Amino acid sequence: MIKAGIIGSTGYAGQEIVRILLGHKDTEIVWYGSRSFIDQKYYDIFGNMFQLVDAVCMGENLEELTDKVDVVFTATPQGLCASLVNEEILSKVKIIDLSADFRLKDVAVYEKWYKLTHQSPQFIEEAVYGLCELNREKIRNCRLLANPGCYTTCSILSLYPLVKEGLIRANSIIIDAKSGTSGAGRGAKIGNLYCEVNESIKAYGVTTHRHTPEIEEQLGYANGGPITVSFTPHLVPMNRGILVTAYADLQQQIDAEAVRAVYDKYYGNEKFIRMLDPDVCPETRWVEGSNYVDINFKIDYRTNRIIVMGALDNLVKGAAGQAVQNMNLMFGLPEDEGLKMPPLFP
Amino acid sequence: MIKAGIIGSTGYAGQEIVRILLGHKDTEIVWYGSRSFIDQKYYDIFGNMFQLVDAVCMGENLEELTDKVDVVFTATPQGLCASLVNEEILSKVKIIDLSADFRLKDVAVYEKWYKLTHQSPQFIEEAVYGLCELNREKIRNCRLLANPGCYTTCSILSLYPLVKEGLIRANSIIIDAKSGTSGAGRGAKIGNLYCEVNESIKAYGVTTHRHTPEIEEQLGYANGGPITVSFTPHLVPMNRGILVTAYADLQQQIDAEAVRAVYDKYYGNEKFIRMLDPDVCPETRWVEGSNYVDINFKIDYRTNRIIVMGALDNLVKGAAGQAVQNMNLMFGLPEDEGLKMPPLFP
Amino acid sequence: MIKAGIIGSTGYAGQEIVRILLGHKDTEIVWYGSRSFIDQKYYDIFGNMFQLVDAVCMGENLEELTDKVDVVFTATPQGLCASLVNEEILSKVKIIDLSADFRLKDVAVYEKWYKLTHQSPQFIEEAVYGLCELNREKIRNCRLLANPGCYTTCSILSLYPLVKEGLIRANSIIIDAKSGTSGAGRGAKIGNLYCEVNESIKAYGVTTHRHTPEIEEQLGYANGGPITVSFTPHLVPMNRGILVTAYADLQQQIDAEAVRAVYDKYYGNEKFIRMLDPDVCPETRWVEGSNYVDINFKIDYRTNRIIVMGALDNLVKGAAGQAVQNMNLMFGLPEDEGLKMPPLFP
Amino acid sequence: MIKAGIIGSTGYAGQEIVRILLGHKDTEIVWYGSRSFIDQKYYDIFGNMFQLVDAVCMGENLEELTDKVDVVFTATPQGLCASLVNEEILSKVKIIDLSADFRLKDVAVYEKWYKLTHQSPQFIEEAVYGLCELNREKIRNCRLLANPGCYTTCSILSLYPLVKEGLIRANSIIIDAKSGTSGAGRGAKIGNLYCEVNESIKAYGVTTHRHTPEIEEQLGYANGGPITVSFTPHLVPMNRGILVTAYADLQQQIDAEAVRAVYDKYYGNEKFIRMLDPDVCPETRWVEGSNYVDINFKIDYRTNRIIVMGALDNLVKGAAGQAVQNMNLMFGLPEDEGLKMPPLFP
Repeated sequence: MIKAGIIGSTGYAGQEIVRILLGHKDTEIVWYGSRSFIDQKYYDIFGNMFQLVDAVCMGENLEELTDKVDVVFTATPQGLCASLVNEEILSKVKIIDLSADFRLKDVAVYEKWYKLTHQSPQFIEEAVYGLCELNREKIRNCRLLANPGCYTTCSILSLYPLVKEGLIRANSIIIDAKSGTSGAGRGAKIGNLYCEVNESIKAYGVTTHRHTPEIEEQLGYANGGPITVSFTPHLVPMNRGILVTAYADLQQQIDAEAVRAVYDKYYGNEKFIRMLDPDVCPETRWVEGSNYVDINFKIDYRTNRIIVMGALDNLVKGAAGQAVQNMNLMFGLPEDEGLKMPPLFP
Repeated sequence: MIKAGIIGSTGYAGQEIVRILLGHKDTEIVWYGSRSFIDQKYYDIFGNMFQLVDAVCMGENLEELTDKVDVVFTATPQGLCASLVNEEILSKVKIIDLSADFRLKDVAVYEKWYKLTHQSPQFIEEAVYGLCELNREKIRNCRLLANPGCYTTCSILSLYPLVKEGLIRANSIIIDAKSGTSGAGRGAKIGNLYCEVNESIKAYGVTTHRHTPEIEEQLGYANGGPITVSFTPHLVPMNRGILVTAYADLQQQIDAEAVRAVYDKYYGNEKFIRMLDPDVCPETRWVEGSNYVDINFKIDYRTNRIIVMGALDNLVKGAAGQAVQNMNLMFGLPEDEGLKMPPLFP
Repeated sequence: MIKAGIIGSTGYAGQEIVRILLGHKDTEIVWYGSRSFIDQKYYDIFGNMFQLVDAVCMGENLEELTDKVDVVFTATPQGLCASLVNEEILSKVKIIDLSADFRLKDVAVYEKWYKLTHQSPQFIEEAVYGLCELNREKIRNCRLLANPGCYTTCSILSLYPLVKEGLIRANSIIIDAKSGTSGAGRGAKIGNLYCEVNESIKAYGVTTHRHTPEIEEQLGYANGGPITVSFTPHLVPMNRGILVTAYADLQQQIDAEAVRAVYDKYYGNEKFIRMLDPDVCPETRWVEGSNYVDINFKIDYRTNRIIVMGALDNLVKGAAGQAVQNMNLMFGLPEDEGLKMPPLFP
Repeated sequence: MIKAGIIGSTGYAGQEIVRILLGHKDTEIVWYGSRSFIDQKYYDIFGNMFQLVDAVCMGENLEELTDKVDVVFTATPQGLCASLVNEEILSKVKIIDLSADFRLKDVAVYEKWYKLTHQSPQFIEEAVYGLCELNREKIRNCRLLANPGCYTTCSILSLYPLVKEGLIRANSIIIDAKSGTSGAGRGAKIGNLYCEVNESIKAYGVTTHRHTPEIEEQLGYANGGPITVSFTPHLVPMNRGILVTAYADLQQQIDAEAVRAVYDKYYGNEKFIRMLDPDVCPETRWVEGSNYVDINFKIDYRTNRIIVMGALDNLVKGAAGQAVQNMNLMFGLPEDEGLKMPPLFP
């Protein structure tokens, strides 16, 4: 039985780790960390957990935690994991960090986009970027896992085969992404109130969203050289879900069957990536509550562009589900353990 | 392995049976019935089922079905199950009927409220009303199970201990119920369009809703004699969930601890009924996707009334989940098999 | 031209006063008060007001304000208006208070339910309860107007004729009310976040909601003696709207036509009360953005109860619209000036 | 007093014309046309109109209509207006067609994208494309007005100054548009049911949406030659609102002030176009219920692209409001008559 601790268990992503691990055969949560709710019953914060979780929230003492657990999930704001981690800790437990602290290999890029000084750059090199479908082997043996961002997972998985195979002009990529509101976190801000979000849609972080360099770095590896993308996120009045609509110029004329073959080459055996039937557009409702990414594309012969669409649940494949998928890999378990739940509709 | 057939598998309740049975260890769905979508791929209708269900929809030939399955779920409009069932069928398979055909023992009451002629009244006597927490023993041995209505399940479970113990004046019961829109079904009606339901709330079926006699019959058993209740349902702009707020006059002064003790007497060992902590009001978000009913009450000393609140997911405990709970009982399986998923939030 | 000042102009009700007065021929807003946003541009807080309002937010100096305006709207938390008002102010301007400070005639009841010490009880007697349809004449001449609560307006108007005419047993009244989320205000609280409210319904303030004594006092006048009611509010995932479903025992058998005649007697000439056609249930979508209250009822002959339903927009007839209707009466203007906008659907 | 008839008055756009004209000083609606609801009371279909509209729905006899009215709004599916219009009708009344029948000058393009044979191509030449801000003078004198599409209005107005001034590479334009569900109409289709739309977002009509050639034609005029754009619409779970996020390559380096000056040159005097302050992104909530288009842009210096955003209410500036704005121009009235209502928030 793997013993797990969660730092930041009272955010939406943290709670989703709890939900998933409750259905995981080989894991037991022994530490519900929460800076804001220490000593409160977990189910008083999340009523869905009544009679399922009896624990009270604990602090963020990573030293103490490492003696009690095998794996720590840090579902916390940027900077916290980097400030806590050290060699002794890493020698005892595996860390799965849901923040951005170890996602970017270039610390200068991190510090520029996140406006933070990185507290432990010495571990960046060792950290593995946990996009399971692309980095599976590296993930198996790592101690410090950087769990990808929600927008990033959806964007990269949607575009990766096209970039890798050189089908599109890499610098022509434009990603227009739409997210449900749980992506904005559980902080008490006016902008996230029901009446402010409901019945509206807006773009935000235009040209400055911090998932941009993460997408560029990973797609740059596929491209074999640096690329620059336009990335624009939008806030949608729904709880969960990310939809990515990406546009790129085709390098040459190609038909849909050939493009499909390329996707199948990379994803044909991937359980959590569903390439939809021709002309079926991904919709976030079809992945809600599950670890799936639904992907499809359409070629626009008039403009010689390809439009690629990807949909996932930002809290599952975009956060907690992927974290558990990574944990499964890191502990030698079946990759889908705890992640077999079908999407919930409606 | 129990082989299951679903008639009406393309409605919301039918699809929810599919979702639940996909996670059920001892069941295999071998028949996806749907009058409207014969020969279409099931996942073309419900995209969440892509790569999970490969079947095409079949018709409603109950004769053929009985040779292939052990249990049939009928998630169909009123009248269909009654028109199909016969002795030969019942000798071969177990029927779990999610319609109202066999819920009411008095056929005249059925025909009056449903404005239908009952096609097989001879089976009404034998049918067992499948409210698991109240009828567990009878359910174990039945062939024909009448799965309760969504509003009914929530109303009865919320009020049953109070009526049974004579704490309230039975004829004073007023039930004000609120339902998510999946309860209205998947029919293409203007009234159920997004723009008609969104940003609005209304009562409907005032004084005439057909769950009324079902509530009255079951609470009448608890009361030891017939009762009459006021029941008013409302349509709420959300997908899932039923909240019941019920009002009744207390027979005599009583304090909250004593009332709580009565609830504990009946529900203390019930896995799917959660009596909340004092002063915590049930909310539908805390049960979404799960088989739980959350119940609590508040005594109004100024008016000597008790206000009882219950919340459940209309598609789970109010329909498909309860149907599977009944199936588990009927086949000697653990009652919670396939039903352990925690509520999904947010 | 009436000069108006608004204290609390950056809450939802305050902003709705702005929206309405922008379409009012005889009023000019000269003071946008807001404790939280002093010196900020009003349109930076409410983007809908861009190019419509050029003002910056001011403080709450009521002394200064009285030299500049003819009327002050206080759309502020309980206690503020009572702490600011004095004889000199009232000799110069008219006050329309949207808080509860002057709604209840018995200061002890106010202090018990609101848990506040009233700062100026000497003005309670003089204050007029601004339910226009019931108190029209008194409103015309008052200096200090207590604008009714949102739930209260809907509850009282729905039940008043029945109580006044003695058709129902006054102490049998049960009011089950449902409100959109703007009623919870614009404060940054976790409970009001989009993901917490969306896809859920709950009761709150059960047996303790502070609109209860206000309803009891006003219906008590109609009854000719004190009454006690059960009042239970619910939070609904929508921006605007209140629906009241009220239950009461009929004193004697009566048919729908006779009940309708009673409503027509009181409301037949009321522009903002719409008695719907028989069997049409009020829905909040049909009043959104307007000053209407839609009312109807159904007699339940089985239980000898009447179910009365009322719907209004909590920010208009439940707050800002009624405040402007009161202002019109107080200044001798046509009662519907600025309030003629049809409901916005969808 | 202008007498107006509405064909298709029971769709969402038709009803919005009614709402707006009820507040228009110089217009009277004398014909509520509706093929589906003939002889039914208009307020039975739209309860918001109770006591505001007393009429019953009439058929679509355009001949009869022309003797009774000065202007006809056709808010009907494509093809109907083209099949009804003739010289005699146009000699008597002005037609404002909200369908696409007369928007495209090239009948072959119309027939290809709409898969219809045009029934009266002889009037295409004469018809004026009613984008008021661009075609004001032509509109004043026309008999047959083609009211622009909702996506189109938002897309064209957002991009027009950039194309006209040659700031962007016209063929690089990518338009990612998001619409509320009222844009899908009031037809009873499963795909538009509440539970199907709620909690989800999807793209649709990818590479094939029929507003594409309309955008290309109008921006082509600005460009001085044909252009091709990528246009992808999305369905958003909200009632009203369109947000356009458009991407284009800048022809040369330019700063935000210079771009802003270009917008001000074209829109500085436009009442219904609001150029937002720097860095403020348009949001659909700030225009709901009003005739405004909110526009802003951001330059992405990393990619040398400009991101332009526009927001409007699809039923107002995207349909009925623009139709009334056009009517005002055609009848020599103040352009904003009936259109002064501030946006409704929340």
